[in-house]
Amino acid sequence: MGLVCPIPLTDYDKILMAHGGGGTLSHQLIQKMFFSHFNNELLKTEHDGAGFSFGNQRIAFTTDSYVVRPIFFPGGDIGELAVYGTVNDLAVCGAEPLYISVGFIIEEGFSMDELWKIVQSMKAAADRASVKIVTGDTKVVDRGKGDKIYVNTSGVGIIPQGVEISNSRIKPGDKIIISGKIAEHGIAILSAREEFEFETSVKSDTAPLNHLIKKVLEKYPDIHMMRDPTRGGVSSVLNEIAKKSNLGISIRETEIPIAQDIKAICEILGLDPLYIANEGKVIMLLPSEQADSVLQILKSDPLGEHAAIIGEVVEEHHGRVVMETTIGSNRIVDMLSGEQLPRIC
Amino acid sequence: MGLVCPIPLTDYDKILMAHGGGGTLSHQLIQKMFFSHFNNELLKTEHDGAGFSFGNQRIAFTTDSYVVRPIFFPGGDIGELAVYGTVNDLAVCGAEPLYISVGFIIEEGFSMDELWKIVQSMKAAADRASVKIVTGDTKVVDRGKGDKIYVNTSGVGIIPQGVEISNSRIKPGDKIIISGKIAEHGIAILSAREEFEFETSVKSDTAPLNHLIKKVLEKYPDIHMMRDPTRGGVSSVLNEIAKKSNLGISIRETEIPIAQDIKAICEILGLDPLYIANEGKVIMLLPSEQADSVLQILKSDPLGEHAAIIGEVVEEHHGRVVMETTIGSNRIVDMLSGEQLPRIC
Repeated sequence: MGLVCPIPLTDYDKILMAHGGGGTLSHQLIQKMFFSHFNNELLKTEHDGAGFSFGNQRIAFTTDSYVVRPIFFPGGDIGELAVYGTVNDLAVCGAEPLYISVGFIIEEGFSMDELWKIVQSMKAAADRASVKIVTGDTKVVDRGKGDKIYVNTSGVGIIPQGVEISNSRIKPGDKIIISGKIAEHGIAILSAREEFEFETSVKSDTAPLNHLIKKVLEKYPDIHMMRDPTRGGVSSVLNEIAKKSNLGISIRETEIPIAQDIKAICEILGLDPLYIANEGKVIMLLPSEQADSVLQILKSDPLGEHAAIIGEVVEEHHGRVVMETTIGSNRIVDMLSGEQLPRIC
Repeated sequence: MGLVCPIPLTDYDKILMAHGGGGTLSHQLIQKMFFSHFNNELLKTEHDGAGFSFGNQRIAFTTDSYVVRPIFFPGGDIGELAVYGTVNDLAVCGAEPLYISVGFIIEEGFSMDELWKIVQSMKAAADRASVKIVTGDTKVVDRGKGDKIYVNTSGVGIIPQGVEISNSRIKPGDKIIISGKIAEHGIAILSAREEFEFETSVKSDTAPLNHLIKKVLEKYPDIHMMRDPTRGGVSSVLNEIAKKSNLGISIRETEIPIAQDIKAICEILGLDPLYIANEGKVIMLLPSEQADSVLQILKSDPLGEHAAIIGEVVEEHHGRVVMETTIGSNRIVDMLSGEQLPRIC
């Protein structure tokens, strides 16, 4: 077709694990190849899903594939992760998730009994999130051409009147809330990997956030922006928001909720918890004067009991995230440059 | 959870290739495990997609994963196949496809240049089908845990007023039309496989059917049922329709359009073209008195020029498909029992 590949082949002529890690290489691939070529206004919003109107209804539509390893991990499994992941992507678009599709890619020889466990887990997850699994597809690939099972879920939901979640609404002065303790999913996955196995009681935080978010939006529909900090963690989400809005984001390390054992594991392994995946947390950016009331709503729910205001949007630091550390100095929190841990979700 | 796996583990304790082949084992898995457990009214319609209402709009929603091997084949590639496949699943639900999601699962080490070819092909396919690719996801799996690239597409579309495509509307006397020559996709894939490679000019029929179907529905919205005969071929689709409606289906071998070279290849390889996948054909069941006019509309379009009336719905043969052969005898056309050719789509 005469077009030149937008990723210079001299830099990367092959796909690396980091192209799927949620950091800089992922973003380059998505921005330079997918967004620029599939180019349309809906994609350009660069949210966790697309929003459009059918008649007088505003719809959100989202997709995610799950390749997490191992498929059963402390606190969850690939089935419930796939349901909650898509539910949460719809919820952070401001939508009430309603219908979910499921696409299985199963490796020949996969245990029927484990498939059945995953199916039961997906049904329980769908019930808990009040969504219906309404359509699906099953493909089987030859032994050695997959890894037990991969699951794609896509979902649709309705965005209520008065709700508009968008990077373009963020203003200097907006407060930044996170709904709970960070880095639990990533560390739970790490603890279950054969190459890293260590003794810990850490569990994935995988959970559906739609009911929690609905409670907030019913009273405070004016939330400006929401994201769930999955792959790439809190730092990637905040960096994306800062870059997109061209405003600065200032956070305080002392305010970021994190469990002591997670903090200790991160220190031992030399990992930064800001880059580690969460699967049951939401980051909200909202008008300053609503922050305390929204925080109270979050804290009154078990999924939000450790919610905290971690910082605010500022005029300075255009496009950057700056953190005041525990010792009082400031450091720039960059986007993840490669990937810390592959196949986290 | 106390529930027993609905596929007796003494029969199949592991997933076989045939569980994804579109035949009897696929159906058992889908019916006994997925439908019975995810149980809801929308799933029960067992169409290529789910239909539901948002306000006064009727929506169709569908998903498919593509694991075709090789990823570039005569007449197409995995990218355009993934776009057209989901476009066609929406179109046979009677919907106008509008928005498509894309989920890539890429094997580490996959060629960036081939990814770029696939992305360009998807964009061209989306343009041809007048749909927009609005949201996506990219995962990378370790070398040896995938096969170059797998693509999931999901899609949403709007079902126009007055259109209702459903097994429940089929009546004895309904005519059965197919929009063109059969078995081209499957034979094209076969010809490109290293283990079978043979000299032929056969090309996949992969094409978007939504514009063709729209032409028909605009004049004849009363089409009772439509399906695209992909995995498992014409026989699987007709068997599913017969079983679901509990009516008989009678077809005539002499009326089924098939190219001479495809017929010859099938004879040499001992394959039955009725079981071979198509990716650009639609089967319509419609009131007898409209059949000739609809046939003319189809024939006036390049994608339908070889359309033919191949049979009708009958009172006898409850739940079965019976074919009058070229030599005048009748034979039962069963559902595919295993799988003829894995990873066709």
